[in-house]
Amino acid sequence: MTGRPGTAPAPHDTVAPARDAANARAVARLTEARPVLETIAPAAEVVPGMTARTILVSGPPMPWQGYEGGQRRAVIGAALYEGLARDEAEAEALLADGTLAVRPSHDHATVGSLTGVCTASMPVVVVRDEASGRRAFCRMNEGADRNSLTFGVWDHGVGARLRHVCDVVSPALAEVLGHLGGIPLAPIIRRALAMGDDLHSRHRAAGTLLRAALLDAVLDLSRDRVAERHRQLAAYLRTADYLFLHLVMAAAKAAADSASGIPGSTLVTAMNLNEKEFGLRVSGLGDRWFTAPLPPVSTLRGRLDDGLTTDDLAYVGGESLITETVGLGGMAAAAAMPLQDHSAGSPREMIRLTERMYGITLAEHPEYRVPALAHRGVPCGIDVRRVAETGIVPAIHLGATLRDGGHAGAVLFLPPLEPFRRAADLLSASSPATAPA
Amino acid sequence: MTGRPGTAPAPHDTVAPARDAANARAVARLTEARPVLETIAPAAEVVPGMTARTILVSGPPMPWQGYEGGQRRAVIGAALYEGLARDEAEAEALLADGTLAVRPSHDHATVGSLTGVCTASMPVVVVRDEASGRRAFCRMNEGADRNSLTFGVWDHGVGARLRHVCDVVSPALAEVLGHLGGIPLAPIIRRALAMGDDLHSRHRAAGTLLRAALLDAVLDLSRDRVAERHRQLAAYLRTADYLFLHLVMAAAKAAADSASGIPGSTLVTAMNLNEKEFGLRVSGLGDRWFTAPLPPVSTLRGRLDDGLTTDDLAYVGGESLITETVGLGGMAAAAAMPLQDHSAGSPREMIRLTERMYGITLAEHPEYRVPALAHRGVPCGIDVRRVAETGIVPAIHLGATLRDGGHAGAVLFLPPLEPFRRAADLLSASSPATAPA
Repeated sequence: MTGRPGTAPAPHDTVAPARDAANARAVARLTEARPVLETIAPAAEVVPGMTARTILVSGPPMPWQGYEGGQRRAVIGAALYEGLARDEAEAEALLADGTLAVRPSHDHATVGSLTGVCTASMPVVVVRDEASGRRAFCRMNEGADRNSLTFGVWDHGVGARLRHVCDVVSPALAEVLGHLGGIPLAPIIRRALAMGDDLHSRHRAAGTLLRAALLDAVLDLSRDRVAERHRQLAAYLRTADYLFLHLVMAAAKAAADSASGIPGSTLVTAMNLNEKEFGLRVSGLGDRWFTAPLPPVSTLRGRLDDGLTTDDLAYVGGESLITETVGLGGMAAAAAMPLQDHSAGSPREMIRLTERMYGITLAEHPEYRVPALAHRGVPCGIDVRRVAETGIVPAIHLGATLRDGGHAGAVLFLPPLEPFRRAADLLSASSPATAPA
Repeated sequence: MTGRPGTAPAPHDTVAPARDAANARAVARLTEARPVLETIAPAAEVVPGMTARTILVSGPPMPWQGYEGGQRRAVIGAALYEGLARDEAEAEALLADGTLAVRPSHDHATVGSLTGVCTASMPVVVVRDEASGRRAFCRMNEGADRNSLTFGVWDHGVGARLRHVCDVVSPALAEVLGHLGGIPLAPIIRRALAMGDDLHSRHRAAGTLLRAALLDAVLDLSRDRVAERHRQLAAYLRTADYLFLHLVMAAAKAAADSASGIPGSTLVTAMNLNEKEFGLRVSGLGDRWFTAPLPPVSTLRGRLDDGLTTDDLAYVGGESLITETVGLGGMAAAAAMPLQDHSAGSPREMIRLTERMYGITLAEHPEYRVPALAHRGVPCGIDVRRVAETGIVPAIHLGATLRDGGHAGAVLFLPPLEPFRRAADLLSASSPATAPA
C-alpha cells in the first residue's frame, strides 16, 4: 500500500502512512488492554457525571419523545424504582420536561445491555484497563429472570430482584473482589474462547470459570462462618447467566475508550442501538455518532425461543455490541460452534463468518485465539474504511427481545452499511493530506 | 446388508441379523448409561475382590517378571506405601513369590490411569450406572503434581500426597457427595463436549463445572463454619487437573461392563495397555483379552513438553482408553479443537479423525454431541468387525510418560490392528450360523 523507497508517492500515499500509523496506535490500545474487574458499586459513586436524576440508556442519543417501546418502559420503571416519581404519569412528566435526564451511557464511560437503563443507586461493575488506566462500567446483571429492565419489562417482581441485587448480592460480591484484589478478565476470556464462548451470546465457560473463582474466594474469606450475604451471592451465581457478559462489556468499553480520539484513525470505537437507530463512533472522529435506521426485525437470522417468530420481536436498544468492537461476539463466531443455530447456521458458515471479518479488521488479537482456526487471533479492530470499501459489515450476535418486553432468543444482526461509509468518507475528506493547510 | 424379503439369504445373511441384534443390545447399554458419581471410598471397602495384598494395575494380564519399567516402579511404590513391605527388596520378593497379587484392574470393575496402581487403602471414585445398576471404580487422582504413581514415580513426596488425599481430601469429598446425593455425570459430559473437551486428554470444562458444583455444595453444608477438611478439598480442587478424567473413566467402565457378555456382539468393551502390550475385549467373547505388542513410541504423534522427543518416552500402561471405548477421547477429537497440536495436527484433521471413526462404530450417541459436526452424536461403540474390514483403528488420545517416570505430554495413539482382526475372525467362526449345531 505504501510507495517503494525511491519512488515518488502518489497523492493517496501521503495519507496512507499517517492513517496506518494512527490505526496501529488505536488497535494497539485494543489488543494491549488488560481488563481487571475491580469492584461493584452504586453508579452514583463511580460513574462519571452520574446524578440522582440521571437515567442512562443504550444507543446513540435520541430525544425522549422518540422512545416508544421497551426502552421507554424501562426508563419509566427505573424512575419508579429509584423513587424519582410516585407513578408513571409523574415519571412521564418529569422525563418530558427534562427534570429527569435520559443520557447516553457511552458518554459516561458506561455500556448497557439491551435497554441499558441504569440509575444512581443501581450497582455497576467497575472494570479497569491496567494498560491505559481507564475505567468503564456496566450495570450489574439483575439475575436469571428474563423479565427484567434489561429486556424492557417493569413490574414489582423486577423491582424486588433489583433491590436484592443492590442490597445483598452486590455488597457481597464487592467484598469478595476486595478479598481477591480484583479479577483479571483477559485470562478468563482467553480460556473461554477455547471453550465454546463468543463472549457475547455465549459466556457459559467464562461464567463457570468466574463462578468457581468467586466461590473459592468466599470459602477462603469465611474464616469464622459463612455469612448469609455470601450464601445469597452463591445462590445468585447459580443462575446469573448474564453476569460475565456485563463484565466483558465493561472490559471492551474501557479498551475502546482508550483507543478513541486518535486523529486520522479509522478504527470503530463504539457500536450500539436504541429502539430506532444503529450508531457507531470512529477513533479519528471522537465522540460523534454516525447513525442509520435499524433494519426491519424480519431481517434478523437466528433461533428464537419456542414458537416465536421475528413478528414477535422489537428492538429495545443495546450496547453489548461493544464486544464485537474488540473482536468478540459475532466477530469470533468460529470459536462458538454451540451458537451455530443462533448465528450463521452451520459449522462451515461460522468459520466463514469469522474469516470474512479479517477483511474489515486491522489486526488479529495476539492473545484471544480461535482453536477452530488453528489458533488464529480473533479479527480485532473494525476499520470503517475497509467496511466501506468491501461492503462487508461486522457480524453481531445480538439478544432478541419481545415487542412487549422479555427475552426472545439470540440472533445474527448485520448493521446498516451507510454510517460506516459516511464515517469513512468524512475521515478521508478531513485527512491531513487533503485538508486545507 | 440384510437380505431383501422374499429372497433366499446367502449364508452370511443368517449371521448378520443375529449379530446386528446383539450389537444393538450392546450399544444401547453404552448410549443409555446414566453414570452418577456416588462417593469416594477406600478400595478395600468397595472394589470387588480387593484384598489387603492386592495391587491393581492397568493392562491385559502379564506375569510379574514382565514388568520392567514404570509399572514395576509404581507397584513396588504402592507396596511400600501400603506397608506391605519394609523395603524394595522385600517388596520384590513378595511380588515374585505371589504373596502380593498383581491383578488386572478390569477384573475388579476398575480402570486405572497410566500405571493404574491401586492398593486397599487408596480411595477410589465410585460411579454407578443408573440404567444397569453396575458400579465401576477408578483410583482418585492424587493431585496436580506430575510426579505420581500414576506417571510411574515413587518417592516420599508422592507418598505424602497420596496420604493427604486419602486422609483429608477423600473423606471431605465423600461428605460433599453425600450432601448432594451424588452427582450425575452425563449432563457434565454433554456440556463439556460443547466446551472444547474430549473428556480424555482434555477435561478442563468438565472439571470446572464439577468444581463449581462442589464448592457451592461445601458452602451449602457449612452451616456453622467451614471445616478445615473442606478448605483442603477446595485447595485440592484448585489444581487437581485429572480428577474429572478419573470420574469419566469409571463412568465409561460401568457402561462398557454393562455391554459385555452379549453372545454374538462384535462391540469392543475394553481397550488398555500394559508396558508391553495393547489389549482389547469384545462383548461376544466376554473377558478374554486379545493382545498385540505396542507400536514403538517413535510412532506416537502429538506434542510433548518442552524439549522432549519420543526418544524420552516409554509406555507405563493405561486404561483411560476406556473413554474411547464409549465414544469420547480421540473418537470425539472434533469436539476438542484445543487439542489439535496433541492429536491430528489441525482443525481439518481433527474433524476428519472423528469422521473416520463413524466408519468403525455402531452408533452415534444420542446425547453426547459435537457442535463442530453440526451437533452430530459422537461415534460410539467400536465394532471389531468394521475395524477388521476397513483397517481403520480407533483414534486414541493418550497421556505420554517419560522413560524414568513423570508426565511428558499428550499424544495420538493408534493401536495395532491385529487383535481387532483376531477377535473379529473368532466371532465370525463361532457365530451361531456357522458354529457346529
